[in-house]
Amino acid sequence: MDEGDAPVTIDADEDGVVDAVTAQMSERTSFIVLDQITSATAMLFPAQRIAAEAHRRGIRILVGGAHAPAQLADPVGGLQSDWWGGNFHKFPCAPRGTALLVIPPEGGQDGQDLWPLIDSWGFADPFPERFDEQGTQDLCGPIAAPESLREIERLWGWDVVRRYMSDLADYAERRVSEAASEVGGELYLRLTAHAYVTTDAIDRFAEQSIPTIVGWLRG
Amino acid sequence: MDEGDAPVTIDADEDGVVDAVTAQMSERTSFIVLDQITSATAMLFPAQRIAAEAHRRGIRILVGGAHAPAQLADPVGGLQSDWWGGNFHKFPCAPRGTALLVIPPEGGQDGQDLWPLIDSWGFADPFPERFDEQGTQDLCGPIAAPESLREIERLWGWDVVRRYMSDLADYAERRVSEAASEVGGELYLRLTAHAYVTTDAIDRFAEQSIPTIVGWLRG
Repeated sequence: MDEGDAPVTIDADEDGVVDAVTAQMSERTSFIVLDQITSATAMLFPAQRIAAEAHRRGIRILVGGAHAPAQLADPVGGLQSDWWGGNFHKFPCAPRGTALLVIPPEGGQDGQDLWPLIDSWGFADPFPERFDEQGTQDLCGPIAAPESLREIERLWGWDVVRRYMSDLADYAERRVSEAASEVGGELYLRLTAHAYVTTDAIDRFAEQSIPTIVGWLRG
Repeated sequence: MDEGDAPVTIDADEDGVVDAVTAQMSERTSFIVLDQITSATAMLFPAQRIAAEAHRRGIRILVGGAHAPAQLADPVGGLQSDWWGGNFHKFPCAPRGTALLVIPPEGGQDGQDLWPLIDSWGFADPFPERFDEQGTQDLCGPIAAPESLREIERLWGWDVVRRYMSDLADYAERRVSEAASEVGGELYLRLTAHAYVTTDAIDRFAEQSIPTIVGWLRG
């Protein structure tokens, strides 16, 4: 199997991302793995448009939405991908080891060709039940995950949290770029803006941590 | 690969188990999986003797000690097996999903040919570190497991618990067989005798549950 990456520049807009990825699709492409939100650069990729392009060419596509649950209101809506996976230990604040696998109805799959890596008690069950009993895994996390989502909905509401996160990320971008303006060249930082992060924490990071980081960069 | 089971009768003594298993070893045997304590029948197999017999013939052997930790004082001592695995969510009372993999020094292996099923962050690390970072697994269980072992040692001491468990199992065997004496043929039950099980619970099981089970058997 040949493998290839589609290079996407960090300043690419939505059309630019679609162009960069579709330019790599050829008759020899059978399978694509696409990040929905990139990990190191936090770019939101137009997964719905790219999945549709892949399926129009008969290419199967897995959308990796690790950072999407709770950060996006509806990551899977209208998604013509074969599979989608998202982690619940990130923005949903659920325990580590909790994640969701979705077979989007628009993707045309039924999951019956999916098997867990661990061939265990559930091996004879249909999808999705065959994923439920792999060895003697600890189910506390999966049991707690829906409570985590419900509790944040009850405390503030996810729409409010998403607006707060987005505003806070804008604020952090402005404060950090001001604080780092004396650095020549480019500086990339990955900051988390969640309900538990405050503008005060961002201020302290900009005022105290950025000079330290700039000091490291200057050697 | 050919596969075969070694039939062991439930009343076999230690020599009988060794004979039954070694009788199945031939020049075409390359790998043996041996229970240390059988699951359904709770038989204690002489894993040390059988592993030595396997290695004398150049056969690799994995000893599955799922029920051994805490129930046996030293399940791995002198074990010439290539690998040994034991579960901590059973007798050690640790969370589900906790287990121990041991490469017994007597087995001559170093673990460098072992790889986790999930090819993840730790893939480039040597054994055993490469098993530590598989995806984003929840490590609460592994962190809690040693505390569980220490807490029971502190409360009663494992030697005392083991003696209690053994005595309670003998008591349960006598009480249940008396209560079920009117049943023709043979009746097999798997009962757990642990520190949290009392003779009173055994009495109630014998007096109340056995007649119900006998009623089911009579249809």
